Amino acid sequence: MGLEIPWLKEASRRSRWLAGVSGGLDSMALLHVLKEEGFRDVVVCHLDHGLRGEESAGDAEFVNRVGEEMDFVVELGRVELREIMAASGASLETAGRKARHEFFGACARKYRCGRLLLGHHADDQAETVLWNLMRGSLGCRGMEALVEITMGGRKMEVLRPLLEVRKVDLERWMRESGFGWREDVSNAENDVVRNRLRNEALPLLEQIANRDVRPMLVKAAEVDAGWRELLEWAVEKVGVVDPQGRLHVKALRELPEILQRGAISDFLRSNGLEGLNSELLNRCVGLLSVDAGPAVNLPGGGYLRRRAGRLVFVGQ
Amino acid sequence: MGLEIPWLKEASRRSRWLAGVSGGLDSMALLHVLKEEGFRDVVVCHLDHGLRGEESAGDAEFVNRVGEEMDFVVELGRVELREIMAASGASLETAGRKARHEFFGACARKYRCGRLLLGHHADDQAETVLWNLMRGSLGCRGMEALVEITMGGRKMEVLRPLLEVRKVDLERWMRESGFGWREDVSNAENDVVRNRLRNEALPLLEQIANRDVRPMLVKAAEVDAGWRELLEWAVEKVGVVDPQGRLHVKALRELPEILQRGAISDFLRSNGLEGLNSELLNRCVGLLSVDAGPAVNLPGGGYLRRRAGRLVFVGQ
Repeated sequence: MGLEIPWLKEASRRSRWLAGVSGGLDSMALLHVLKEEGFRDVVVCHLDHGLRGEESAGDAEFVNRVGEEMDFVVELGRVELREIMAASGASLETAGRKARHEFFGACARKYRCGRLLLGHHADDQAETVLWNLMRGSLGCRGMEALVEITMGGRKMEVLRPLLEVRKVDLERWMRESGFGWREDVSNAENDVVRNRLRNEALPLLEQIANRDVRPMLVKAAEVDAGWRELLEWAVEKVGVVDPQGRLHVKALRELPEILQRGAISDFLRSNGLEGLNSELLNRCVGLLSVDAGPAVNLPGGGYLRRRAGRLVFVGQ
Repeated sequence: MGLEIPWLKEASRRSRWLAGVSGGLDSMALLHVLKEEGFRDVVVCHLDHGLRGEESAGDAEFVNRVGEEMDFVVELGRVELREIMAASGASLETAGRKARHEFFGACARKYRCGRLLLGHHADDQAETVLWNLMRGSLGCRGMEALVEITMGGRKMEVLRPLLEVRKVDLERWMRESGFGWREDVSNAENDVVRNRLRNEALPLLEQIANRDVRPMLVKAAEVDAGWRELLEWAVEKVGVVDPQGRLHVKALRELPEILQRGAISDFLRSNGLEGLNSELLNRCVGLLSVDAGPAVNLPGGGYLRRRAGRLVFVGQ
């Protein structure tokens, strides 16, 4: 086929898969890959965000037509994103993501399938890494090739088979194969930032470094995923929870700080805490120091308390 | 003093310290901080790279004068960097670093002091992170506030007390205090890239993100240092070396890949291997897979061999 997609080696052609398809290059490439590779039971999920009138409707018609020609099931959804934004006060990016999540969750229930394929590619990944890095707190984190996300109340397995493929290779393959796509489709993303990263920042960095920096950013995301895998392994390995389900302060103190944070974060989440942010986690880790106060209040009315050399989770 | 420098809380005012001082804002700020804070035994180490004729000589004279006014010992060195480059074929950056390392190593021997202070600040750190990220393989690695480096054959402890201080704060403090510095001093660095990152890339990213991104890059370097600390901890903790000093293949296979790499890398280095790069490490890690060949040749004539479920280091 001319595209290197590791996921294809293992993916079942007989299983049902949901595919998020906007009609743009990326997701149409995904769709054609599925068809060419003999996948039989694909549900093409397209959400019209209602943002660009007739053009939006044209995208939906295009996706519908191609999907039906492929003998795939097509599920079309439609929201009025501007109304949602006006009602909720959310940004375009946030409202769009929420609407898509709800739509995909509904598709998952309707078709009894929790596996969703998305068309993000390596150039998206490079932009994501750069953007996360600039926003802080996420380091070089990128999108994951396989990740569990709860969408519209349903646990979904989200897969990005094209994450290692360069956009230029997708485009070449699509052109050579004579496949079409819709330019400039609405994806309700924060387009201004994305476009400026793509069209200004990355070309400038490329010029300064005298090489294409996107593969380096993609590599950095892989390394970052490796670090997080190591942290998960270490949290499980380290055993700082005592038989009574409390955290052992002295054992925690001897660990690298990043592991202290990981272990405490894991402990709080496993006790059902939601809404843990970096600032709150800092205060919880602070309980390990001898001159700290004895407790940290948690969202929802509970608290984390230090007592007799242990950290105890007290629910509300 | 108006500058937040955590290192000052613990640093001994009576101990001897070497300070690398070019005469520019950063290192002059470092020097004045040391004087203001009551450090008594500072050796001001200045290397004239011989690159800009009279201006270089002027830098040396300036550093010498200020150092003597402070009652510090001043050690001036001089090299002809262009001649070194011509003879060795090294780049300006590489030759400059090597010359500085040899000079600082010689200072350490002469003054019997292995602690070297450098004036790198948070803006340098942000540029370093961005540059390392663009070059690949190093992720978000930055400079370290405290690191052991062998310079001119001598193990040195290199400290960067200003690494969390913004350049604008250093400059404000220097101006308010009436302290002078030399603009545009020769630092033999890869100035073109550095300057473009500083003057073009970072301002563009700042404009796109609508916030100063340098603190985020500095933060990313801290997180990266935390990850590497975790890896060191995990390599020590994991115990994959058997009593005969061989690596246990089955135990290694069960580890996250990044820890496999860390453990094998640590094992090779502890057996005295030098010149381990990423590509060679990949091949060594490959020995864990069942269908790999039985051995990988190492630089210097030795090899790493898989036998009876163990990896054995065989020296040349």
